Amino acid sequence: MTTGQCTRHPFDAVLELEFLDGRGVRGRTVPEYANMVGPFGGATAAVLLRAIEAQPDRVGEPVALTVTYAAPIAYGEFDVDVDLVRINRTNQHWMARLTQGGEMKSTAMAIFGTRRQVWSDTEEVMPAVGEPHAYPVAVWPPLVRFLHNYEARVVDGGPPTGEAAPSSVSTFWVRHTPARRLDFPALAALADVFFPRIFARLGRLVPAGTVSMTTYFHADAAELERVGEDYILATARGHRFAGGFFDQSAQLFSRGGALLATSNQVVYYKASGLQ
Amino acid sequence: MTTGQCTRHPFDAVLELEFLDGRGVRGRTVPEYANMVGPFGGATAAVLLRAIEAQPDRVGEPVALTVTYAAPIAYGEFDVDVDLVRINRTNQHWMARLTQGGEMKSTAMAIFGTRRQVWSDTEEVMPAVGEPHAYPVAVWPPLVRFLHNYEARVVDGGPPTGEAAPSSVSTFWVRHTPARRLDFPALAALADVFFPRIFARLGRLVPAGTVSMTTYFHADAAELERVGEDYILATARGHRFAGGFFDQSAQLFSRGGALLATSNQVVYYKASGLQ
Repeated sequence: MTTGQCTRHPFDAVLELEFLDGRGVRGRTVPEYANMVGPFGGATAAVLLRAIEAQPDRVGEPVALTVTYAAPIAYGEFDVDVDLVRINRTNQHWMARLTQGGEMKSTAMAIFGTRRQVWSDTEEVMPAVGEPHAYPVAVWPPLVRFLHNYEARVVDGGPPTGEAAPSSVSTFWVRHTPARRLDFPALAALADVFFPRIFARLGRLVPAGTVSMTTYFHADAAELERVGEDYILATARGHRFAGGFFDQSAQLFSRGGALLATSNQVVYYKASGLQ
Repeated sequence: MTTGQCTRHPFDAVLELEFLDGRGVRGRTVPEYANMVGPFGGATAAVLLRAIEAQPDRVGEPVALTVTYAAPIAYGEFDVDVDLVRINRTNQHWMARLTQGGEMKSTAMAIFGTRRQVWSDTEEVMPAVGEPHAYPVAVWPPLVRFLHNYEARVVDGGPPTGEAAPSSVSTFWVRHTPARRLDFPALAALADVFFPRIFARLGRLVPAGTVSMTTYFHADAAELERVGEDYILATARGHRFAGGFFDQSAQLFSRGGALLATSNQVVYYKASGLQ
């Protein structure tokens, strides 16, 4: 029996911040959340959201988060400057800038808001799918480290097979492995769990990277707590691939069909020739 | 016969800027583009995009634009500070802040990029609809001035009728009236032409306003030039209305079916009781 020991989840290492003077915070990239070049963009979104969420005068819960990926983040330390741009009755507008050695790498704009008892309804219907265990676990390339923190059960559109496809849709049941509860930073990261949709269309990997991502949070903290460590259903697709930039949208549902978040991103890609 | 006279389109008045020292510009709200409270959010998006587009060292065309609406803009003059945050090989990251009397009203983040000859494809299919003249022209409330600059032919989901509806979808053929060519600022404004989807669901007007909007531009300038003054097909819907915030997405197509832009926004709303 071990005593007084506990293993920190690697995603909590992603979110670990040192508080500097004023609103500044310092973080570190986490090896388990490395992508092929630099850290997983979802981890960057998560830590920027966390840097804002951790401010003592933050009120409410995340409503919207836009993150731009301006330059590759080097492995190691980074600084985040946070700024409260505007306070309204029901929401706050925040900005954050991630720098390394003074060089601007990433920016974020976030809206936090207080939800109220008003008419509410979900119009987007969860795709009709079976239970998670009815689907095979995706086998990811060993080089893409961050994906090994997620157990994805492929309902549709798994890892590229070498064959081009007419549709870029992927639908996964997904949860953390090892298990971890869902919170807002985890949801912000999961919104970026999908490989670039160009890989799905071409059936192969090409140079590609998110330029800007916007996530709208629909769930409140109580709803995320009810999800706990369970699977969520995540589905994504591209709309247009045009001259080196494409967009992709994602929806994230609880197992019970609650739309937890919708997310959109624009991605840079290279793909010479017809295919 | 009049000589040397020409009538400026009111949308070109929206885009008229005075260049100050450095990167700053000064603009003015235009009465024809007033919304119920303050200027039309689409006009704000357009002028912020224009303030960046007009910078002498801007390279490429708009790829992404996120605008946050932090506080109501008063009718009259405003200042925009523009900042080039990052230059990459194929894209530039820009920020802009709209202030009035030093008070922050709106922020923008924009990516400009250079499109290249690479594999390209549109996956999103334009809804199957008839020609514009097969549909009635929408009759807007006289109070919403900006809408009178657009001729919208209602394919589906016209102005609120007093009846609640299970779907928030609206689909319009839309063009400027009087006629005006389509350019990037005009496209940025058109992405916001839809009334808040909560009105469609409840069948009536409730207090609502865009908090943040993100538009991805898929068309290049040549494609917009081919559209010219013609109708575009614009369709929008909401996904989840939750505790005072909802999201809505929009797609804008050329008559030939080219996906010109996709846009998403999160909107604040009030709606007490069950309906």
